[in-house]
Amino acid sequence: MSPEIDAARLLARIGALARISASPAPAVTRLAWTAEWREAADLLLEWAAQAGARAWVDPVGNVIAERSGAETTKPPLVTGSHLDTVPGGGPLDGAYGVVAAWEVLASLYDAGIRLRHPVRAVAFVNEEGVVALPYTGSRAVVGLVDEAELAGIQMDGRTLDMIMSEAGCLPEALHEAEWPQGAAAVVELHVEQGPVLDSSRVPVGVVTAVTGQQRGAIEIRGRANHAGTTPMAMRRDALAAAAELVLAVENLAGPGRCDVATVGRLHVEPGAANVIAGRVSMSFDLRSPIEDRTDAAVDELGRRTKDVCSTRGVEVDLDPATPTRPVAADPVIQDTIEIAASQLGLESLRMPSGAGHDCAILARNAPFGMIFVPSTGGVSHHGSEATPDAALVDGARVLLRCLIDLDSVIDVGGANE
Amino acid sequence: MSPEIDAARLLARIGALARISASPAPAVTRLAWTAEWREAADLLLEWAAQAGARAWVDPVGNVIAERSGAETTKPPLVTGSHLDTVPGGGPLDGAYGVVAAWEVLASLYDAGIRLRHPVRAVAFVNEEGVVALPYTGSRAVVGLVDEAELAGIQMDGRTLDMIMSEAGCLPEALHEAEWPQGAAAVVELHVEQGPVLDSSRVPVGVVTAVTGQQRGAIEIRGRANHAGTTPMAMRRDALAAAAELVLAVENLAGPGRCDVATVGRLHVEPGAANVIAGRVSMSFDLRSPIEDRTDAAVDELGRRTKDVCSTRGVEVDLDPATPTRPVAADPVIQDTIEIAASQLGLESLRMPSGAGHDCAILARNAPFGMIFVPSTGGVSHHGSEATPDAALVDGARVLLRCLIDLDSVIDVGGANE
Repeated sequence: MSPEIDAARLLARIGALARISASPAPAVTRLAWTAEWREAADLLLEWAAQAGARAWVDPVGNVIAERSGAETTKPPLVTGSHLDTVPGGGPLDGAYGVVAAWEVLASLYDAGIRLRHPVRAVAFVNEEGVVALPYTGSRAVVGLVDEAELAGIQMDGRTLDMIMSEAGCLPEALHEAEWPQGAAAVVELHVEQGPVLDSSRVPVGVVTAVTGQQRGAIEIRGRANHAGTTPMAMRRDALAAAAELVLAVENLAGPGRCDVATVGRLHVEPGAANVIAGRVSMSFDLRSPIEDRTDAAVDELGRRTKDVCSTRGVEVDLDPATPTRPVAADPVIQDTIEIAASQLGLESLRMPSGAGHDCAILARNAPFGMIFVPSTGGVSHHGSEATPDAALVDGARVLLRCLIDLDSVIDVGGANE
Repeated sequence: MSPEIDAARLLARIGALARISASPAPAVTRLAWTAEWREAADLLLEWAAQAGARAWVDPVGNVIAERSGAETTKPPLVTGSHLDTVPGGGPLDGAYGVVAAWEVLASLYDAGIRLRHPVRAVAFVNEEGVVALPYTGSRAVVGLVDEAELAGIQMDGRTLDMIMSEAGCLPEALHEAEWPQGAAAVVELHVEQGPVLDSSRVPVGVVTAVTGQQRGAIEIRGRANHAGTTPMAMRRDALAAAAELVLAVENLAGPGRCDVATVGRLHVEPGAANVIAGRVSMSFDLRSPIEDRTDAAVDELGRRTKDVCSTRGVEVDLDPATPTRPVAADPVIQDTIEIAASQLGLESLRMPSGAGHDCAILARNAPFGMIFVPSTGGVSHHGSEATPDAALVDGARVLLRCLIDLDSVIDVGGANE
């Protein structure tokens, strides 16, 4: 018997996770290490038991369920996503990939199939970074969380290790969360969180790379003054300068440049209708799947900033944060996803992921790939986040087929083992 | 003996008023109808008594001191300014013109001079509009405050008449604050609150008009979305649209257009670095001393707004408030001020006032003129607001001379009596 996704079970479980929320439906709020997170983790352990899988919560809070492989020495094929949401998020971001990973285990169990590799389903903790720095779970797996981070005070005034301990985790055993054996492959299934698949009516996205990201802050200091009595030529208007820089940032995106460039935050002081702005602080966010493009964009922004300073008599500080480098998906896994979709009669589209994901963190230790399904209207991080049921089922079918194919494609003694 | 400004008394009294403040020096906070306002009003009544002037606080809180005229039927020559400040304001805005008005009375008294017209010194209440709508005192004098306004709830949750009553005023006698006889002329002395006189090193400004003002709000609705996953071509970025409109507003000022045009307030929602702005609300403030120019500017802004809507797929509401029309100063009074300055050996400059003033409200009932002195660095509404002592004394001397000249220039049976 060939393993099959149980559509009803998949959809019911997505609904069951969505109901474990600190906010009224349809919004879902399930922050890492909270009571809601713990309740969801317990449900995953229960589902794992029903699928005959060994399951545990690791020291930092990743929920892991594993079906052993026919060959005992092989590193696992890993699939999963994150269990936490943003405040007032949707039912699919993270949860969909988690439920699908557990569904893969269940379908293999139902069909009595054992792959050569172990299959490891993971529900990563704190991907969103609402409670602490993002990607805590996946970073812990590859050794990128240290004791200093655990001792750091978080937004609610407690240290991260206090938060973890109170949630029943074992932060003192941090390093036992690492996977010294790595993984044979990592495949994450996720909603696109953007409008590309939905608007082009393609059901499957094959992620080529998780884009690099350069965030930063711009602070503009002009001179606050009376809006009625200060002649235009004698102004140092921080908001007019900021307006030029908002448009300059937008212009950093385009062919041969960044994919996207955004100013989402802008704060004006003193912020009164009859007072010329004396100070503006604003964000910028530049993303590209191609190395060096965000660096070039920051250089260009620096030049535009100098122009604005000299023409407007303002002072501008440009403060880029440490960039996140783009991470390319493994070409073999990309091909395998594309072939799996095709075998299931589903059209697919190669595309970068503009958002960061746990699988790109794991790329340090393992080849990774990523499958997208359409987000209706491109909406995410909102209660109205949705994907048609058929597309959710199709995505899980592609994931299952892809993992089964990878199990044979990735050969003993290959580069990745 | 010819009346003379007593420089030491003038400067000492400016200092005395500045010390009546709810905030630590050098900032001055003396809001209308507060304990500080009452203390300052009592001081003005005491100074009036020392100058042999009849003095009272009118029903809404204007402090009035009057030296009778030689001819009993004439309407008064009026001078004065406002006693209230903005929170954290400076020592001169309003207070300077009040002290100078009282100094005019004192100098006439000291010299034993009685003019043909009564001379009325006024300290208007709530010009700044911090406690309630602005210009309460001057509007009451010309019958522009009604019972509905008095019954209106103010920012602190009390009605305006409650606030007035608790300060010892008689809001029920509102209409007794009106001046049925009008005024022979109104001359207000004020700091420029802008950089023009200071930067051109001219000691006296002759105000040609108080500019018309068109304020309003712009609301831009785009679509909040993920800054990483939404392609540039599929965005409806409310902040990028707002940036274009900030620059469009700035561009409404120029030769043949408005004098000044400002966006001072801009608020972004949701305002996160990694979320495309879904909504922006912003202010605009357009000023011109020439009728119709602000109207033309609003029309142009409407056209630019339509362009931005169509190119960016956003919706924009443009909501202009009721405009304040420009009010021209009386040509005879302008000439009289200019001649007075010249006779005192002081250069003067004709200029519009970009800020509103009580005298422009009184222009409904009387011809008005206005004298400016330099604001160091153009700073106002701040504790560092300053004018050199010599310029403060010169301004008061111009005021005194101007009133004495007007007393003879304005003839019996003239258009204004």
